[in-house]
This record gives sequence, structure tokens and C-alpha cells, in this order.
Amino acid sequence: MLESEIQTLKVGVEALLAEYFTAKRASAGDLAREAIELVDAVETLTMRGGKRLRALVVRAGMVAIDPKAELEPALRAGAAIELLQTYLLIHDDWMDQDDQRRGGPAIHRLLADARQNEHLGASLAVLAGDLAGTYAWELLSQAAPAQHLLAVVRNYVRMQEEVLFGQHLDVTASPDVERMHTLKTASYTVTGPLRIGAALCGASEAQLQALNDFGTPIGIAFQLRDDLLGTFGQAADTGKPTGNDLRAGKRNALTVEAERRLGSDWSKVSPVFGVQQAAQADVQVAIAAIRDSGAAEAVETELTRQTALARARLAEAPFSREGKAMLEDIVRLLVDRDR
Amino acid sequence: MLESEIQTLKVGVEALLAEYFTAKRASAGDLAREAIELVDAVETLTMRGGKRLRALVVRAGMVAIDPKAELEPALRAGAAIELLQTYLLIHDDWMDQDDQRRGGPAIHRLLADARQNEHLGASLAVLAGDLAGTYAWELLSQAAPAQHLLAVVRNYVRMQEEVLFGQHLDVTASPDVERMHTLKTASYTVTGPLRIGAALCGASEAQLQALNDFGTPIGIAFQLRDDLLGTFGQAADTGKPTGNDLRAGKRNALTVEAERRLGSDWSKVSPVFGVQQAAQADVQVAIAAIRDSGAAEAVETELTRQTALARARLAEAPFSREGKAMLEDIVRLLVDRDR
Repeated sequence: MLESEIQTLKVGVEALLAEYFTAKRASAGDLAREAIELVDAVETLTMRGGKRLRALVVRAGMVAIDPKAELEPALRAGAAIELLQTYLLIHDDWMDQDDQRRGGPAIHRLLADARQNEHLGASLAVLAGDLAGTYAWELLSQAAPAQHLLAVVRNYVRMQEEVLFGQHLDVTASPDVERMHTLKTASYTVTGPLRIGAALCGASEAQLQALNDFGTPIGIAFQLRDDLLGTFGQAADTGKPTGNDLRAGKRNALTVEAERRLGSDWSKVSPVFGVQQAAQADVQVAIAAIRDSGAAEAVETELTRQTALARARLAEAPFSREGKAMLEDIVRLLVDRDR
Repeated sequence: MLESEIQTLKVGVEALLAEYFTAKRASAGDLAREAIELVDAVETLTMRGGKRLRALVVRAGMVAIDPKAELEPALRAGAAIELLQTYLLIHDDWMDQDDQRRGGPAIHRLLADARQNEHLGASLAVLAGDLAGTYAWELLSQAAPAQHLLAVVRNYVRMQEEVLFGQHLDVTASPDVERMHTLKTASYTVTGPLRIGAALCGASEAQLQALNDFGTPIGIAFQLRDDLLGTFGQAADTGKPTGNDLRAGKRNALTVEAERRLGSDWSKVSPVFGVQQAAQADVQVAIAAIRDSGAAEAVETELTRQTALARARLAEAPFSREGKAMLEDIVRLLVDRDR
């Protein structure tokens, strides 16, 4: 995939979102002027963020089924999934009491500060999240041709259900970290967008299943890359300080593996684990201990294994030649990244 | 409408919901066994409640367009709107910190008690609400024939957006109480279900608009009846103690009108207004003062005016004869009720 295609999709999704928010602000004004506050909150978080890679994943799912597929549905469905993410992030940040998101205040923080009232801020944030989720449905419905809308909705419902179950495992601190991530993140980053893209083009059940079988290990590999970057990544690349996941006390594949391997030497990590104010020198000691434990290498090995599994499945899958090439590019973008 | 038709719809919606939850509990078990907790929470609140009148409103919207319409889509869309209500009630109860709902603990209360953790309980309740909203979409998508699904989704999105804006006006204590209620309650009780029913049968824009024009005053009248019952209703009928809205300190058409009329005599009401533990004798004094102020009569007059407006619009509307008769019945059920 050419860099220019990635850029075209990113620009297209952002233009579509900007236009959508302008229209929504106008129609919200007709219904309840005060409630524009919620539209603003949704827009603020949505427009702050990101690589907009999910539109690209939708697009790859489409091309896998129909190499002549038009661009527009990928933009609209991609924008819908951006709004789904806004919905999820707003609710999650309040649940996790994370006050920062995408380089600015989290929405519950923003609204609580504006209202000088914590519970009202949290209530408005939950409402803003609900609104983002509603808007996602509207954009999604506009993406699909009538004859494929039901299949698209079905796949979208399944994705949203998976994410919510994943979030349940997260807030209840389930020990099954890999399944939590597969449900909570891979679902709406890889498998969901792939299936939705394919459904937009009238994919058969066999094709949907093949995309799922390809996407599942890619989702795991994506998350493993995230885990590695969250500890070893450079601030200049990730936008987060090195060792960020350690300070946040994240239980993920890397930290769970490191704890198992280090045994009593986990004491080199524990003084900074979950300690936001930990000194950088102590974080470096923890990072070195994790590296020396072989945990990073083990996670890299697993990542490579999952990626190879996905590629093997891709080779056998009933997709167009163009689609297979695009899905290969997706693997590189999601797994072989440094941010 | 025969009482037997109302009963058929109620039984049908409840059977469909029970079957749906059984299937969901099984599929949730495959994805994440622990998360069945969320399915249970959604089921608990959904199955506790209600008259299931919204399926009837959907059905009337369908028959207005097509007197030969089948029953099944009304059941499925009605069940979807029951789940939408579950979603809204779970989030609202947490926002309002109401610990009781439909004769049992509110979901955030239930989950906080089970987990012995207030924030975790609130987080799981928000997730359970999110899940109910997701399930509503699934049932809705199953209700519509492919060629009408887009119109159905569009009307459903509009309804959900209206409710969220209404809830915004409620949590921010907007002085525009009537608009708050129209958006927050009438939307998904009257106008939304009517439009969705009509859209299920391929209604034209003119027909959708006519249903909206009929439903808007009915929604207002429905709410005014609620306001009157909330203060004057008998416990045996409403299931809530007489004067319930006074103890809850609800700002609604009746209490706002009474406060305006009573002037300094509002002091007869204020000792119990918003005081859950108020003595029954003091509540009776407040109720008598409100009645003597003429506020109840004024609200009744407005209710009659709105109902007449709806009936006048109905007479002119481009609906089937059978549909008009059913909509007449809906007026009686929603407006001339004692509970």
C-alpha cells in the first residue's frame, strides 16, 4: 500500500468527521441548544486523535471481497468506528479514572472541571459517550448499500458486544489478559473492521470466517506490539514516556511474563509498577530487569508466531489478489510499527 | 383495541425477550464467561418491568401505514425499545443516584453491593447499560425487512439522540421542563415507536411527519398525566406512594405551575418537597395546597388541549382507517390512564 493511500483515507475520514460534526451541531441546536455541550465533547476527543488506521482495515476487508470496491463506504464506516472508539474511550477513562487522553484532559475531567462538580461531570461524560455511540450507528448505516446493511449491522453488533465484554474483563481484573485484549481491543481494531468491510461488499459466511481467522492472530500480535512499545518504546515515537505501562501498573503479556520469569527479582520492577511518580532512573532499572529476564524476547517470539499464523491463513483464504496484498500491508502497519 | 390484543403483544414481547436472553447467556458464555454478569443485570431489570406498551405503539404505527402488517416486527421492535429503556434507566439511575427501580434495587446499587465497591458497581452498571443498548440494536435489525432497514435505523438513531439530549437537560436542571420531557420520555414512548413502526412498513416522509405531528402532543399529554399521577395517584394504582413526586422533589409541569400560583404559600409544599422521609400528614397538606391552587386543573386543561390537538391532526392524517382506530386507542391508553 502506498503511503499516499493511507494519507487519502486519513484525510477523507477527518473531512467526513468534521462535516458530520458541523451538521450535528446545527441539528442539536434545533433540538436542545444546551446539549451542544455533548456534541462538542464528542468532537473534541474524536478530532484529537489518531492514525485513523481502522478505515484502512475496513478498506482492506472490502478489497478482499471486491477489488473494485468504492472508497466512500470505507471512509464512512471508518468514521463510524472512530466514533465507536470515542464512545468507548470516554466511558473507559471514567471507569479507570484516567484523567488524560490523547494529549489532553479526559472528557469526564474536562466536564467536571467546567461544571465544578465531579458527579455531574461523570454523568455528562457517560452521556457524551452514549451520544458518540449513537452517532457511530448513524454513520455506519450511511456506509452500507441497502442489501448489505443487515449483515453490516450484525457484524457491528458482534464487535460492540465483544468490546464491552473485554472491558468487563478489564475492570474486573480478569487474569486472562490475552482474552481481555482480544475482546477489548483487537475486536474493534482488526477483526471487527475487517468483517464490517467485507460485509459492506456482500461477503459470504466463509469469507467472513476467513477474515476472522486471519484477523484474530493479527489482533493478538497488534496487542503484543503495543505491550512491548508501552515499556520499551521511545517517547519520540509513541508520544508516551518510556516505561509508561510500568508506571501505569498495566497487567499485560509482557509484565505478566516478566513477573513469572523474575520470581523474587520482580523486586527490581515492583518499586515503579503502578507508581506514576516513579523516578526515571528506577524505571530504567525495571526495564533492564524485564529485558534481561528474557520476557521481551518471549513476547517477540509469540508475536512472530501469531503473525506467521495469520500469513499462513491469508495464503489459503478465499480473497482477491488485491485484497491479499492489502492485508499483507495491514500486517506490517499493525505489527511492525514503532509507535 | 381489544384487551386481548394488548395481552397478545405483552406476552409476545416477554416471550421473545426471555428467549433472547437465553441465547445471549449461552453466546456470552462462549466469549467471556465472567461477563454473563452483565447479561444477567440487563435481564433482571428488563424482565422486572412493565406494561410493554411501546410494542403496541410500534404496532399502531405499522397498522397506520399497512393494515395487513404482520405482528412479528412489532414484537421484535417493541422488545428492542424495551432494551433501549433498560439501557437508559440503568444509566439514568446511576446519574440520579436513584437506588430503587421497578420495585427492586437499581442496577448500580445491585452491582455495587455484590462487589462491595461503589465505583466498580457504577462502572459495571454503565457497561450493562451499554450492553442493553447494543442488544436493542440487534433486535431492531432483526425486525426490519432489508428494504426498510435504513429508514428504521435512521428513525431509531433520531429517537436515541433525542433521549440523550433530554437526559442532558434533566441532569443539568434545565428550566424548560416540557421540552426536557418531550425529548427524554415522549421520544421513546410515543413519537419514536410510532415512526419506527411506520418505517418498518415503508412509510413515506409525509406519513412519518404526520405520525410525528400526532405523537408530539400525545407525548406531552402522556407526561402531563404522569405528572398528575405522580402527585395525586393512588398507591394501589401507580405502585408508588401518593405524593411520590413531591418527596422526590420533581420539577414537572404540575409542581412548576403550583409554585408559580402559590407564591408565598409554596411554604405549604416546601417542607416535603425533595424530602424522602416527609411524614404522610405533611404530604397531604402539600397535596391539598397544590389542588387548591388550581394547578391540577390547569394541567388537566392543558392535557385536554394537547389531546384534542392530536385528535384533530389524526382526523386529517394520511393513515389507514384501521390505523386511525388503533391510534385512538393509543390515546386512551397513554392519556386516560390511572397508573
